[in-house]
Amino acid sequence: MPDRSNPTACLLVIGNEVLSGRTRDANIQYLATRLGELGIPLREVRVIPDVAATIIGTVNEVRARFDHVFTTGGIGPTHDDITSECVAAAFGVPWEKHAAAWARLEPHYQPGAFNPARQRMATLPRGAELIDNPVSIAPGFSIGNVHVMAGVPRIMQAMFEGLAPRLAGGPPIVARAVHAHGLAEGRIAEGLGAIQARYPGLDLGSYPYYRGTGGGVAVVAKGPDAAQAAAAVGEVTALMRDLGGTPIQGEPPV
Amino acid sequence: MPDRSNPTACLLVIGNEVLSGRTRDANIQYLATRLGELGIPLREVRVIPDVAATIIGTVNEVRARFDHVFTTGGIGPTHDDITSECVAAAFGVPWEKHAAAWARLEPHYQPGAFNPARQRMATLPRGAELIDNPVSIAPGFSIGNVHVMAGVPRIMQAMFEGLAPRLAGGPPIVARAVHAHGLAEGRIAEGLGAIQARYPGLDLGSYPYYRGTGGGVAVVAKGPDAAQAAAAVGEVTALMRDLGGTPIQGEPPV
Repeated sequence: MPDRSNPTACLLVIGNEVLSGRTRDANIQYLATRLGELGIPLREVRVIPDVAATIIGTVNEVRARFDHVFTTGGIGPTHDDITSECVAAAFGVPWEKHAAAWARLEPHYQPGAFNPARQRMATLPRGAELIDNPVSIAPGFSIGNVHVMAGVPRIMQAMFEGLAPRLAGGPPIVARAVHAHGLAEGRIAEGLGAIQARYPGLDLGSYPYYRGTGGGVAVVAKGPDAAQAAAAVGEVTALMRDLGGTPIQGEPPV
Repeated sequence: MPDRSNPTACLLVIGNEVLSGRTRDANIQYLATRLGELGIPLREVRVIPDVAATIIGTVNEVRARFDHVFTTGGIGPTHDDITSECVAAAFGVPWEKHAAAWARLEPHYQPGAFNPARQRMATLPRGAELIDNPVSIAPGFSIGNVHVMAGVPRIMQAMFEGLAPRLAGGPPIVARAVHAHGLAEGRIAEGLGAIQARYPGLDLGSYPYYRGTGGGVAVVAKGPDAAQAAAAVGEVTALMRDLGGTPIQGEPPV
């Protein structure tokens, strides 16, 4: 691990709709990017179904292994929204009426419309700290190192940005890239491996790309030390040039 | 689990680039959809980094729990492409020159260009059965119940379609949907829970949606029995109408 000093994150995407292909996940990339910027690199993602035993077991497994666990999905009012009660079970605490959440939700509805299904959204693990939902009121929450958010991307993003100042991060993970059109990954592989070996504090990734006009290879150096990343990309640039390529700084245009 | 009689699948997305946010995964939804059609529902996805101990441990954990394991990513020629050797380690078999893969790759290159980095793509776990790569030659492979594919979406898709006829599936998972604009999820929740309870062989999902012109709720019934799915959606349609909604069959337009 190049960034041993950074806290780590795991994301649980909870929902049958991603596993069935109905919905294309849009939260992984957003959270991966933002967590890197906050210096809390994302180390694992799991997409799991709305099955209580799976959610409870997975939450307990990953909250012991990572500094932060984020969940998306399963906090609405319907029968398949079971994330909140499963997190309570995972922590072994009661799942009960949460006064502050109740006070936000009840006045949001017409008299009589705050029905039992909607009351479930104000029923949380004891000790939960609310995460604001500026889009549709019903809050997320944190308990211990687990942060429970909505699955709808614009709600999740608003929740995360409200939560972010409360997260203790590390040095931001920076990325530097270089690419060369027409150069094959298999030609730079040996030299790239040698450069990686000289920069154990960085993560050097090699990514072939394909465009209508042909392909090439992009190399990305990532880590908490921007000067190291720039130096490594300088060496990769020289390698590409030595092999007859025309290296261009940055990622290839889409 | 509504489809106990179907074989199950787990997908491992292997690659730092998804965890860093550089790349948005495009393989989960494709495989989720196709596996459902083949009657091998996807039960879990994990996105894991290019770290040998993590790959080996995860492969061994999930191959014992699911009928099929699919992996994407990490089978190219560079130092960060370690999926193949990790799968060999997970199975406890030698990682060695694979004669058939070698015979495909070597003639693909100019004389002298089939260098040690490229030879790694013809080095596979002993006993691996090749998965054709009609796009860029370098094959994937199956060993036991683990199917190792490329991460680039169009290569992965071509590999999967070549592999699919070899997979023993179950009844296809079918989906039937109905939606109602202007109807809140919290109003149908109670009745929907009762319908779900009457159809234990189905998975009923409730999905709020948001459009420029307002929102609504979509309900999707999934399972291997198309008649049951249609009957359940009929009951949901009646529920929506009873609550003053105007149900429309199918998913809401995007």
